[in-house]
Amino acid sequence: MSRLMHTLHVELGERRYPIFIGRDLLAEPDLLEPQLAGNQVVIVSNDTVAPLYLDKVRTLLGERRQVTEVILPDGEQFKTLATLSDILDRVMADRHNRSTTFIALGGGVVGDITGFAASCYQRGVRFVQIPTTLLAQVDSSVGGKTAVNHPLGKNMIGAFYQPQAVLIDIDTLQTLPAREFAAGLAEVVKYGLIADEPFYRWLQTHVPKLLARDEAALAEAIERSCAIKAAVVAADEREGGLRAILNLGHTFGHAIETSQGYGAWLHGEAVAAGMLLAVQLSASRGWIAQEEESALRELLRDLHLPLEPPEGLHTEEFIDLMGRDKKVLDGGLRLVLLHAIGEAGVVDDVDADELRKLLSGR
Amino acid sequence: MSRLMHTLHVELGERRYPIFIGRDLLAEPDLLEPQLAGNQVVIVSNDTVAPLYLDKVRTLLGERRQVTEVILPDGEQFKTLATLSDILDRVMADRHNRSTTFIALGGGVVGDITGFAASCYQRGVRFVQIPTTLLAQVDSSVGGKTAVNHPLGKNMIGAFYQPQAVLIDIDTLQTLPAREFAAGLAEVVKYGLIADEPFYRWLQTHVPKLLARDEAALAEAIERSCAIKAAVVAADEREGGLRAILNLGHTFGHAIETSQGYGAWLHGEAVAAGMLLAVQLSASRGWIAQEEESALRELLRDLHLPLEPPEGLHTEEFIDLMGRDKKVLDGGLRLVLLHAIGEAGVVDDVDADELRKLLSGR
Repeated sequence: MSRLMHTLHVELGERRYPIFIGRDLLAEPDLLEPQLAGNQVVIVSNDTVAPLYLDKVRTLLGERRQVTEVILPDGEQFKTLATLSDILDRVMADRHNRSTTFIALGGGVVGDITGFAASCYQRGVRFVQIPTTLLAQVDSSVGGKTAVNHPLGKNMIGAFYQPQAVLIDIDTLQTLPAREFAAGLAEVVKYGLIADEPFYRWLQTHVPKLLARDEAALAEAIERSCAIKAAVVAADEREGGLRAILNLGHTFGHAIETSQGYGAWLHGEAVAAGMLLAVQLSASRGWIAQEEESALRELLRDLHLPLEPPEGLHTEEFIDLMGRDKKVLDGGLRLVLLHAIGEAGVVDDVDADELRKLLSGR
Repeated sequence: MSRLMHTLHVELGERRYPIFIGRDLLAEPDLLEPQLAGNQVVIVSNDTVAPLYLDKVRTLLGERRQVTEVILPDGEQFKTLATLSDILDRVMADRHNRSTTFIALGGGVVGDITGFAASCYQRGVRFVQIPTTLLAQVDSSVGGKTAVNHPLGKNMIGAFYQPQAVLIDIDTLQTLPAREFAAGLAEVVKYGLIADEPFYRWLQTHVPKLLARDEAALAEAIERSCAIKAAVVAADEREGGLRAILNLGHTFGHAIETSQGYGAWLHGEAVAAGMLLAVQLSASRGWIAQEEESALRELLRDLHLPLEPPEGLHTEEFIDLMGRDKKVLDGGLRLVLLHAIGEAGVVDDVDADELRKLLSGR
């Protein structure tokens, strides 16, 4: 049996690209090779992931290629313009030309910054995502959102730039720390909530298998998550409308992350607490049953995810930080809420009073 | 008679946009107003242009808008990631949202960095080009190439990102220093050479009117230049092929600029010396008559443009710097040469020996 278990495609016309999902894909040269154009490659990774998987990727690339390795310090606090500049300095010094390929080997931070670097190096070169965290595998590596953070807001500087391919080797999840694994599951839960009720119910009954990192369960969870993400992105690449539903819990979550300084809370942790607030708001509007809030709370607790925003984050500061989020349009605050489990929608009539009630009521 | 003399369009499907050319357009609110979406605007200019035209643009915008002004120091040496970061800091601090519009008021440096900032702020917001130098009016403001420089190479970090509109007020040329005006004429000459022999002959006979900044002659030169640029960009937005002909003289020119440090030579000056080398190479290959080289030399001299690369730039350094240019593909050096006046083509068989002969023979 092939180690490649699933291949999905993100349908974006001439920028259509494959997502390969399977076991031990880092030993399959036939997947990566066709994605490269010239004989130059830049691998960007971090000092946690590189010791584990960099050699495998180098072996995949063969002997004849000119490879520049850029190993970043691990952490969201390094997802900055300064780090981007460091990457580009290395690539320039090694004289990479327009037919080079950037490979992102790591989690969401590595993927986001590498994708942005690839988008702006010589106004755009090829890049391939090899996500090694669950969060990156189900979310950030698919869809072409690339960015770095600004001290005043997350992901504020970036580009929409699609990869050539995404290689998801689920074996890499075996080395992922438990906290990061749980953070990835938060985004998996999100897909069920916004677009796929049967998948959400499946998740509720598969917590033990998922936490045991059972490979069949992981492959299923990743494939269904990627399929939803791919469909949404294909319908709305640049977030003109539908794509916004992927942000369930994210406006709350970004505010939490910003308040704590990047890196204190993992993105998925902030999204978990944020999703619960969004579901609470949906329930208080009477759009979903009150029991769904309790059920989600239970699921997130079983997955070892945070249920509450950080203690020191006061209501007014929280609201203020939400107002800085990209999802703010002239005047009103837009949020993703649920009309039902598996059905999300964007509202733009959430005012500060409704938020105050929600946030001080907890 | 309307002050608007010409309107061209860059035909890029749903990203089609107008180029307005005329006199005193900075007093015409009807041109700018429809390009703005929200009530926020960022004006980026420099400390040379702002004292002359910033008030006019502010008046155009009316009283009700939230306007952030970012005034950069004037000069190519500030076209860096560090300056980009400063611009984004200001925009973030003033909480501009996704419906903001960036306006570039100035020359090529301001346009390139503002366009790149607009492309990456929140992954892309609207921007409008108001070029105030001849070079920017006929070249850099049209076509969507945005970038900053890297210490090891010009325009190495950027994006393809089209403006909403380009407003060319030819009255702004009356305040342009003679040296910059001449540098802009170098690009005007380029359009004739690569794509329009009758225009090139017209230029040869209109040097006195152009140097006197006669407005009818300027409007004609700008319109024909923009029309050629717009047609080339519409056919090949991302420089997959045809668009490369716009780089006549530029591989030589970029090497000259890099060798001297940005700002010592104006871009148009370096392009003038570079075009002459490209034409010399075309003539030595027997593709165009030897007399055309002399005629171009005469035209450039009459326009007060440099005819020779800088004295201290030795052949091997020159060749080495050309090899760093973006137009290098695996192994071979690509150059734009002329098959005839008005007909350019890309060749990829120029080797170091041919360059040595050309550069040491001068």
